[in-house]
Amino acid sequence: MGDSLSRTIKQIKPLDSKAMEAARGRQDELTKPKGSLGRLEELSIQIAGIRGKVIAGFEHKAIITIAADHGVVNERVTLYPQEVTAQMVSNFLSGGAAINVLARFVGTRVIVVDMGVASDLPSHSGLICRKIAYGTKNMAQQAAMTSDEAVSSIEVGIEIVEAEIAKGLDIVGTGDMGIGNTTPSSAICAAITGEPVEKVTGRGEGLDNEQLAHKVRVIEKALALNKPNPREPIGVLAKVGGFEIGGLAGVMLGAAAHHIPVVIDGFISGAASLIATELSPSLKNYLIPAHLSAESGHKVLLQYLELTPLLNLEMRLGEGTGAALGMTIVEAAVKTLAEMATFTEAGVSQISDGLSP
Amino acid sequence: MGDSLSRTIKQIKPLDSKAMEAARGRQDELTKPKGSLGRLEELSIQIAGIRGKVIAGFEHKAIITIAADHGVVNERVTLYPQEVTAQMVSNFLSGGAAINVLARFVGTRVIVVDMGVASDLPSHSGLICRKIAYGTKNMAQQAAMTSDEAVSSIEVGIEIVEAEIAKGLDIVGTGDMGIGNTTPSSAICAAITGEPVEKVTGRGEGLDNEQLAHKVRVIEKALALNKPNPREPIGVLAKVGGFEIGGLAGVMLGAAAHHIPVVIDGFISGAASLIATELSPSLKNYLIPAHLSAESGHKVLLQYLELTPLLNLEMRLGEGTGAALGMTIVEAAVKTLAEMATFTEAGVSQISDGLSP
Repeated sequence: MGDSLSRTIKQIKPLDSKAMEAARGRQDELTKPKGSLGRLEELSIQIAGIRGKVIAGFEHKAIITIAADHGVVNERVTLYPQEVTAQMVSNFLSGGAAINVLARFVGTRVIVVDMGVASDLPSHSGLICRKIAYGTKNMAQQAAMTSDEAVSSIEVGIEIVEAEIAKGLDIVGTGDMGIGNTTPSSAICAAITGEPVEKVTGRGEGLDNEQLAHKVRVIEKALALNKPNPREPIGVLAKVGGFEIGGLAGVMLGAAAHHIPVVIDGFISGAASLIATELSPSLKNYLIPAHLSAESGHKVLLQYLELTPLLNLEMRLGEGTGAALGMTIVEAAVKTLAEMATFTEAGVSQISDGLSP
Repeated sequence: MGDSLSRTIKQIKPLDSKAMEAARGRQDELTKPKGSLGRLEELSIQIAGIRGKVIAGFEHKAIITIAADHGVVNERVTLYPQEVTAQMVSNFLSGGAAINVLARFVGTRVIVVDMGVASDLPSHSGLICRKIAYGTKNMAQQAAMTSDEAVSSIEVGIEIVEAEIAKGLDIVGTGDMGIGNTTPSSAICAAITGEPVEKVTGRGEGLDNEQLAHKVRVIEKALALNKPNPREPIGVLAKVGGFEIGGLAGVMLGAAAHHIPVVIDGFISGAASLIATELSPSLKNYLIPAHLSAESGHKVLLQYLELTPLLNLEMRLGEGTGAALGMTIVEAAVKTLAEMATFTEAGVSQISDGLSP
């Protein structure tokens, strides 16, 4: 394990229980029946625990969207050609993708990172180029990457989020782009949760039944060949993972080490969170699962992690689109805690002891 | 039935199928796998059908929050004293309630209406005073209101939303305030859906088991006494309803008559939608259920209406708080349709005929 990764894991601490208690106390004084804001109340308390203060500002928000390619596309597991990864990165940079529209709408920046696109991308002021390689190897034939590359991908994720934190980041969301990346995500999900490949493999961009069955066989072959050990997350990432998945795991760990909440997107980000929480179980308290993806493995991995998604809008796009919407719910939660009047301030009668009148 | 109500019901037309087809066509050209934005795509198509155009702007948004009191509180069905209705209206007007915070956050105005608070409220530039009476009668002893009052309450709702439409409203959300108003809402829900009172009655602000059982008995008594006919929605509203519930039914009908989408809040707004859709079955296409309330009857009535809520955040506050969050999801949906690049514009390869490469 690399130095920066070990240091980061050691830095992840339990949440601040005093701040959480104070936030819970304030929620109970606000002009509403106790608990009536449901998950908004829970979120506001979690954020207080993460930030170590009752009222946290959300001035600086970002979605980190990491792109990479996957050698396993040679096994014909996707409908879109591999070149679409690079084309979509250009689309992100010119602001025309779903993540751009949703991030603009919710007031969040999008940070676009190339960690392993299979071609050289034209340089662009908005693109962070930290390529580990030109795509992973085909995991149905060999390990997707070396252990060193796996550690590097996580450490690059840590560096990227730390650079944003140095500029004042308050909350981060995760996003991904990579043609074929539901395949390694399903493989990671099967390896770590122990569930059958069939149960954690979905239709990606829209596979039919036969294509889905083929995808399942490819993943089973990759797992049989590489034999990832579920208790060795770096090994799982190296054998059947992807560079963007490693990078997102790093973003999560780096954010948590600095008391920054992480809104996790859908299935690919979920696979990254499996790797990251195996490396640091304390990380889980810093994660907010934005939504339940329509990709079938996502439900399995969220249940394994005992995380309940905020939204279920049947989305399955990735890019951070779910995270953008989830982040706005988190911000709404924090605003209620910060801005609502208390019973005393508003002159509203509190609950009586027993029934009224 | 009043003239304005009959006219409004006649004005509610089916959605514009041509605009919907064009919106669906455009969604399929945007840079993402078909259908991958899930309910956002469906919402954008529904809005196109309601507005009669593919790209609808959301410049003018409002939540109409209607307050009223309920004679049935004399049966001791609530924990908060009745005076809290008036106190919360003051809180709305000074901007300290949850609905104010959430509406500010999502960029929506809150229109506060008194349709039957049990006391005279101080006049305020932000308060629309259209009191039908000083609260309903106790429905466990007699009809909650007369048929004329029921029709008036709906027509006031129509007038209020029409006044906003005249000023350029693009989308409206519903909200309520009224201590005790889960009781008439459960009664309406039982009367119209035919489900047992026990199944549609919840804990409101936090009743314990014994208090809940008492509330169920009070509602059963009110239904046995008043015998509302489920096919006569004005009669149901008069016998076991509330002024804010009638008003919100009017808001829904008036909005739909003018091709304005309606984001419905939780259980009380849901009860209003039961009344309103009985009056005009075509209304349903104009409704967007924002969230699933933690109040148990809400699930029953949404299933009865075959409406699927956008959010489930275990909220049960009312005021329009769920509608405010739901409205921002609708706006996000419309933005993706309006602002995303097409495959051609972005130079992104479309799906290949069969698997890649």
